[in-house]
Amino acid sequence: MTIPDPSTLTSQQTRLLARQNAITNTAGYSPGTLQANLLILPQKHSQDFHNLCLRNPVSCPLLGISTTPGNPTQITPSPCIQTPDFDLRTDCPLYRVYKHGKCIATKKPDLLDVWPSPSPNNTPEAQEQVEETDYTAFLIGCSFSFESALCAASLTPRHHTTATIVAMYRTSIPLLPSGIFTGAHCIVSMRPYREEDIDRVREITRPYLATHGEPVDWGWDAVQRLGIRDIQDPDFGDVQRFEVGEVPVFWACGVTPQMAIEAAGEKIDGLVFAHEPGHMLVTDWSVEDLERLKGGLGVFD
Amino acid sequence: MTIPDPSTLTSQQTRLLARQNAITNTAGYSPGTLQANLLILPQKHSQDFHNLCLRNPVSCPLLGISTTPGNPTQITPSPCIQTPDFDLRTDCPLYRVYKHGKCIATKKPDLLDVWPSPSPNNTPEAQEQVEETDYTAFLIGCSFSFESALCAASLTPRHHTTATIVAMYRTSIPLLPSGIFTGAHCIVSMRPYREEDIDRVREITRPYLATHGEPVDWGWDAVQRLGIRDIQDPDFGDVQRFEVGEVPVFWACGVTPQMAIEAAGEKIDGLVFAHEPGHMLVTDWSVEDLERLKGGLGVFD
Repeated sequence: MTIPDPSTLTSQQTRLLARQNAITNTAGYSPGTLQANLLILPQKHSQDFHNLCLRNPVSCPLLGISTTPGNPTQITPSPCIQTPDFDLRTDCPLYRVYKHGKCIATKKPDLLDVWPSPSPNNTPEAQEQVEETDYTAFLIGCSFSFESALCAASLTPRHHTTATIVAMYRTSIPLLPSGIFTGAHCIVSMRPYREEDIDRVREITRPYLATHGEPVDWGWDAVQRLGIRDIQDPDFGDVQRFEVGEVPVFWACGVTPQMAIEAAGEKIDGLVFAHEPGHMLVTDWSVEDLERLKGGLGVFD
Repeated sequence: MTIPDPSTLTSQQTRLLARQNAITNTAGYSPGTLQANLLILPQKHSQDFHNLCLRNPVSCPLLGISTTPGNPTQITPSPCIQTPDFDLRTDCPLYRVYKHGKCIATKKPDLLDVWPSPSPNNTPEAQEQVEETDYTAFLIGCSFSFESALCAASLTPRHHTTATIVAMYRTSIPLLPSGIFTGAHCIVSMRPYREEDIDRVREITRPYLATHGEPVDWGWDAVQRLGIRDIQDPDFGDVQRFEVGEVPVFWACGVTPQMAIEAAGEKIDGLVFAHEPGHMLVTDWSVEDLERLKGGLGVFD
């Protein structure tokens, strides 16, 4: 299968390629649309997780929620996903599976075996299966959108030019707790910039509240303020090279929700699914929707 | 003037008494309604401050915003304040004034001298005055509402029984920056509870997302985790007595926005007004509105 230029694909076309497992990393696909981190968990934990996102919108900004527990095909609000054949279990390129807070499977091409469609009949067995598959999905904004805005302003992130994965670090910033989700900390991504460019970098990313927004901190002093262990040894992704005069600039990162799952550990009853980092769900939101999205999803109900 | 029992007053009645400067501390007034911290600043800084609230909704949960810059009489969304004679400059019992991030006046009975009504004619002088008085107001949720819920569950906060002011502390939790508002930290309020009561305390306050919600941390270990200097020496309010078996429980606090103003300092061009701590603006929101408020104000537009 020949893959066309990623920058020319619509969000629907990218999702179809992901469903066919014809693409992997979605960076650069369907620019101008908002890409999402995915977190799917049993309905019994969904209220706590929803509140966790509402209390921590910089690291966990909500772009959409599945409409009905157990139904992998509909997302609220409706502008988020507009194709009728959408399926949460197939339309990311790759997935992860967590059990009791531990990642037990990575790079799964789909979730069809672990989240089966409930059978239509009403037998006790079918009812039990429904309860075991009443998953609720959360779509959480990803920074890929503001990266294309930075590129357009000649402030291309270093990991684009070096074809590496953005450096990510654990921090001491607490993720404010919600129900069973306690004791987690925020993850940040880091992009090197010259000090004189930081004001512009902040301005360009500021409107993207639904995809992490402006940086949470910057400068060499920030390494200690954020409790980062070693800037040369990222906790996720690849180490990034600093040119003379550059300092680290840190953004909240969509890997944070997976840290909340890890920290909750045995308190989670049932399986949790997530996207494979970098392999995002491309939504039908566009950068034009950012202004309306910033106040929360309610305005779209 | 004889003041009736505070617990029998409607929100409109409490605001009228505040306007007449007949009451001071609003704790216990109009239970079941949501009380608000007040922050009023020049229009040029309102976008940054609005984003600051959206990025930090646990310490700065928005209950309302003034509808038109310079107009002290209308709040959006409309259910927040429903009386036509409302005036932001008089309907809090007491006010504070900040200049360049420093508090220059406390316990002012009203703001009529510092925020004059624009004159109706269209002279250049009047136009200039309009620009100097284009203040925008932010109403930020206050914990007084969940305190009455705790009292109703026989979990009365200690400062109620000792007639003291709740203890408040500076923490190391960063207030995630927005525009000119950088370098500030969250303030927490503290109430002592027995360890075995913490789950119930968390559950009772959890639905109050629009007024700080569940605690941000708890237990003696939390003192160090939050970077609190000395639990026996609060930064604001009164030291609280611990009974045997009690531990500190910490909530985000509505004094935090005033810390953001202090940290912004000289970057603020013009005056900033706030309520005098404890002397809140009583809104027409009720606890029944909490569920709709939790997703943001957009749903009410």
